[in-house]
Amino acid sequence: MTEIVKPSTLPGFMELLPQDQILFNEMLDTIRKNYEKHGFLPINTPAIEKSEVLLAKGGGDTEKQIYRFQKGETDMSLRFDLTVPLARYTVEHFHELSFPFRRYHIGKVYRGEKAQKGRFREFYQCDIDIIGNGKLDIVNDAEIPVVIYHTFKDLGFDNFTIRINNRKILNGFYSSLDIEDTVQVLRTVDKVDKIGNASVKKELMENGVSEESAEKIINFISIKGSSEEILESLSDLNIENEVFNEGLNELKTVVEYIEAFGVDKKNFAVDLKIARGLDYYTGTVYETTLDDYPKVGSVCSGGRYENLASFYTDMKLPGVGISIGLSRLFYQLNEAKIIKSQKKSLVDVMVIPMEEQMLDAIKLVSELREKGVKVVLYTEKAKMGKKFKYADNLDIPYTIVVGEQEVKDQKFSLKNMQTGEQEEFSIDEIVEKLK
Amino acid sequence: MTEIVKPSTLPGFMELLPQDQILFNEMLDTIRKNYEKHGFLPINTPAIEKSEVLLAKGGGDTEKQIYRFQKGETDMSLRFDLTVPLARYTVEHFHELSFPFRRYHIGKVYRGEKAQKGRFREFYQCDIDIIGNGKLDIVNDAEIPVVIYHTFKDLGFDNFTIRINNRKILNGFYSSLDIEDTVQVLRTVDKVDKIGNASVKKELMENGVSEESAEKIINFISIKGSSEEILESLSDLNIENEVFNEGLNELKTVVEYIEAFGVDKKNFAVDLKIARGLDYYTGTVYETTLDDYPKVGSVCSGGRYENLASFYTDMKLPGVGISIGLSRLFYQLNEAKIIKSQKKSLVDVMVIPMEEQMLDAIKLVSELREKGVKVVLYTEKAKMGKKFKYADNLDIPYTIVVGEQEVKDQKFSLKNMQTGEQEEFSIDEIVEKLK
Repeated sequence: MTEIVKPSTLPGFMELLPQDQILFNEMLDTIRKNYEKHGFLPINTPAIEKSEVLLAKGGGDTEKQIYRFQKGETDMSLRFDLTVPLARYTVEHFHELSFPFRRYHIGKVYRGEKAQKGRFREFYQCDIDIIGNGKLDIVNDAEIPVVIYHTFKDLGFDNFTIRINNRKILNGFYSSLDIEDTVQVLRTVDKVDKIGNASVKKELMENGVSEESAEKIINFISIKGSSEEILESLSDLNIENEVFNEGLNELKTVVEYIEAFGVDKKNFAVDLKIARGLDYYTGTVYETTLDDYPKVGSVCSGGRYENLASFYTDMKLPGVGISIGLSRLFYQLNEAKIIKSQKKSLVDVMVIPMEEQMLDAIKLVSELREKGVKVVLYTEKAKMGKKFKYADNLDIPYTIVVGEQEVKDQKFSLKNMQTGEQEEFSIDEIVEKLK
Repeated sequence: MTEIVKPSTLPGFMELLPQDQILFNEMLDTIRKNYEKHGFLPINTPAIEKSEVLLAKGGGDTEKQIYRFQKGETDMSLRFDLTVPLARYTVEHFHELSFPFRRYHIGKVYRGEKAQKGRFREFYQCDIDIIGNGKLDIVNDAEIPVVIYHTFKDLGFDNFTIRINNRKILNGFYSSLDIEDTVQVLRTVDKVDKIGNASVKKELMENGVSEESAEKIINFISIKGSSEEILESLSDLNIENEVFNEGLNELKTVVEYIEAFGVDKKNFAVDLKIARGLDYYTGTVYETTLDDYPKVGSVCSGGRYENLASFYTDMKLPGVGISIGLSRLFYQLNEAKIIKSQKKSLVDVMVIPMEEQMLDAIKLVSELREKGVKVVLYTEKAKMGKKFKYADNLDIPYTIVVGEQEVKDQKFSLKNMQTGEQEEFSIDEIVEKLK
């Protein structure tokens, strides 16, 4: 007698039923198709890397979340993002790649975070990056959101906003005020929607910012309007700071190019509140929000970085990229009922043999398949009602019952499982009907 | 100054350059497309499972190869195949699934084997299985090789053989000879191609088999011919053993059905030498070989099992399935030069702007994309020769240079990168040409 173990997955790991998996795969395919048709090349790196390599950067919260283990003498870890593997890949295969290296990577990554609703320990990331050898033109910073625009359109979204900013504008602005602890200031400024201008100003001054500077900060974060208006307001600030003006010029160029790429104005916006991870990005930054579902937060983020792989090489490899966290997005869309988990069949028809007609049913299945119809055969002995219920459960749109008479006449009754209608057809008519 | 870590992957982990990855993905897509159109539903389970669940069966060589680790209180392991996760999934979601449950699963699995040529520690398996609730008709044993037949045809193979046997024939035959240690006998019998009939007979007798039985065994393993001939020879043995005759009937039925499904006779064969893993399979067993490359060994194996999930449930869940080990297959095909790693572009054309024409180039890219052409934009400042070399390296079939004159005339010169020919076209003509 075998001992029975209760079968279950670990908490924080997503697992879907087939009908949801079909939907998930459709989204994944849409993303992949868009990445590919915009000229990104696929890579697929091992999920396990040498800890020494993966954690070269070291430190931080990430390291605590890593799944790290020994096997024999080897210290290995599961990847926690696709960026570190990209850096490793780019340097390792440098001489076999063509630059700018445009790659996409869709794969699972692992983080041993505290399990909580909507957070996963294994999740899909869908990344695109463009890596330059030494330098990388600003037009790439426009190309990235263009890919995301088409991807989200193809995913069925109309109301989304790709929010764009440039870290140099933020850095230059705060540096023009002689503020050194930008992190502290940004943290305070981040609260403006909750606590209002006056409280932000007060808190800034409590943290050592002069009244004049605090007022300038309030003016800066109050800049609103269309992308053009914001860019104009930024120019009007007349800030004499090289970094600020470099950032402003970059942002102007990116906006101009994005428009030229034909992105609908309603789907992108300059947003000075976007900052992203404070130490990694150095220029353009992106976040993407769903207009009708602000609570979902950013569904696609990224930006420009000075140097992809400083832990692996002295070469300068600037890049720009963006990532869709598909598992989380899927979960949130499902929770918010934005997508509906629906039964969906990948085949056109189910062929159901009567008790003695298996061989004839097989021949019909074979002929239909040869003519390009996607067919599943009902294989078991069961009552007719149970067979139809099976087709129904799997949302198979049509069924054909194969009996003696049908085989003799070579006429088969095609039943529409949605409407219940059925009609007699020859095989060729069925093929035409189902294609 | 950052300390530089040498970037490299762990031994035994496959990683491909983009051009090879494109080829790999094409094979994967072909497999998936075939699995789907034959009515198999997708599942995607976590790569990490509870050790207690994954190793419920326990023991054996497999356990030594597992990547197992602790995170906090949790004992977890990377999956080493897709069968155990299928068993866990089927029982866990039993009430939400429809039976027969036809699922496909394409995913990475992990085995910490000794690293050696052509063996990988992370590799793709592409599995289909059909699981019955309580029972499962023998027609499913015919459907499985049919899917594999179409898959290998679509992968571009003509000369392959799906070899089929039935474990009951082997078990029944040896049991009719009152041989209990079938494992020992099968091991001896396996050497026949190397050592010949006489030596096998001698070794069998040394191991306690009677001369009469040893002769019967030699007769049995000498049965050769077409599938029909083999089935007839087996009948002619007149063995009065229930299990043997059950197996023989099953095999006859499977062969009859496979033929009815339209599988070319040259692509399948009854082969009494096929036995597969000795404790798991209980009926039909499959191996698939490439006729022109016998050294590659079996590229796709599987069979029928009595009970998928006895470690998780008392319910009887018989099944039949097969698996393509894609990473290994890809590696071997590549090594044997059966497939050629070739540069291959996923886009139709590269648009190259002259120094000052970026904005016009972007507009052209946008218009071409809108009309369904897959375009990549050359983004960097560089000499013309370098730009063309880039297109060449990525094997992009066409290029268009955008200069002032071209924009004015709205006529663009389309260069065929293979032949070097170039000709002027309007945008619509280009679209037509590239589609």
